[in-house]
Amino acid sequence: MDDTAVRFGVHELIGAYADAIDEGRLEEWPALFTDPCRYLIISRSNHAAGMRQGVMYAASRGMLLDRVMALRGANIYEPHHYRHVVGPIRLQRMEGTVAVVHSNFLAVRIMHDGGTHLFASGRYLDRIETAGDGYRFSERIVVLDSEKIDTLLAIPL
Amino acid sequence: MDDTAVRFGVHELIGAYADAIDEGRLEEWPALFTDPCRYLIISRSNHAAGMRQGVMYAASRGMLLDRVMALRGANIYEPHHYRHVVGPIRLQRMEGTVAVVHSNFLAVRIMHDGGTHLFASGRYLDRIETAGDGYRFSERIVVLDSEKIDTLLAIPL
Amino acid sequence: MDDTAVRFGVHELIGAYADAIDEGRLEEWPALFTDPCRYLIISRSNHAAGMRQGVMYAASRGMLLDRVMALRGANIYEPHHYRHVVGPIRLQRMEGTVAVVHSNFLAVRIMHDGGTHLFASGRYLDRIETAGDGYRFSERIVVLDSEKIDTLLAIPL
Repeated sequence: MDDTAVRFGVHELIGAYADAIDEGRLEEWPALFTDPCRYLIISRSNHAAGMRQGVMYAASRGMLLDRVMALRGANIYEPHHYRHVVGPIRLQRMEGTVAVVHSNFLAVRIMHDGGTHLFASGRYLDRIETAGDGYRFSERIVVLDSEKIDTLLAIPL
Repeated sequence: MDDTAVRFGVHELIGAYADAIDEGRLEEWPALFTDPCRYLIISRSNHAAGMRQGVMYAASRGMLLDRVMALRGANIYEPHHYRHVVGPIRLQRMEGTVAVVHSNFLAVRIMHDGGTHLFASGRYLDRIETAGDGYRFSERIVVLDSEKIDTLLAIPL
Repeated sequence: MDDTAVRFGVHELIGAYADAIDEGRLEEWPALFTDPCRYLIISRSNHAAGMRQGVMYAASRGMLLDRVMALRGANIYEPHHYRHVVGPIRLQRMEGTVAVVHSNFLAVRIMHDGGTHLFASGRYLDRIETAGDGYRFSERIVVLDSEKIDTLLAIPL
């Protein structure tokens, strides 16, 4: 396994994920996962307590797509958007063809009137499949630092 | 073209750019561009609408330097400064010797009294010349997430 | 010296450092330094003035550990925690086996009630020993952008 190629591939996937959300191309988001997969948004304390259900959960691309469709149906126009910064990205280890990767993120929300505020912070705990046609998340657990989950949090993070 | 060398070179250039602004060494900033070049700060919606003029524009090192001189003349002392964090940085593709690179950034502003707040977020859409003596931006488009452009925005971002 | 290996090693160390603090595993923090070492948190203006003492200082793993023990004694429970994002990370040069590395960071603080705010921004000026068993900071100077040091700042940054 070429370590350099893995690190760059992981970096691109994590960048593509942020772009899909921040640029409002949510339809591209499910394709960044394997099928089946595991996607979970969970608070820090619930994750530490070993809970396996969270604020948002999906086990397949179909479930991820359902989430996108629900969002598209609920919002005729785009009232706000997001910007993610991610780093540092750590390659913890390889398990066969799967890269175990942790990273930190901040997400800011930009409202329609231009107001910008810190929206969320936390960690991405990823398992990334490096074999096959392109890197994909087989698991992405989004561990949110805050317990105070915003009621607007229907979007992926 | 060695992909690894390009990624590291791109990373260093983007870091040098942030340093030049954040450390107040604005005189070094124009040298990070080719001559001629294209530098543009534009809001997200104007960029999406295909507009080619924005909040700040320069087509050469001379125009970039003019901007620095204007700033130096207007501010006898430094009333505030900035800190940029950038990531993830994506190498989209090579076009000959030019690397097409996208990244996300947050910039915070630190006022003289120590108050710190989120100042801007957005994307860098870069075309980076990798041939010749050192990497240079042949184009940097700064796409700001917010429409609410701060009137203090006379500095580069 | 393999530049690629150095950059990845540096990146991992900087990530491990952020994790140790953000995940509350402070006991792991001193082991990320050589012994002796130099650790300093200092404000931007004091650093620019050439001052060598700052808000926090340590010259050995023992002194770093003392700091951790003091924190553990003072706080029975964890009333808040932190999240660091770091980037871009610049490899300035090698001096023998020591990598001279600069990076930018933002740190947010998450209070017990879930409130999140920007806590600190600044630069890491690092000297990283790449020889021996694993990368270690022989020096980490944390240059804080703001003069307004929070009185809660007893933790490492």
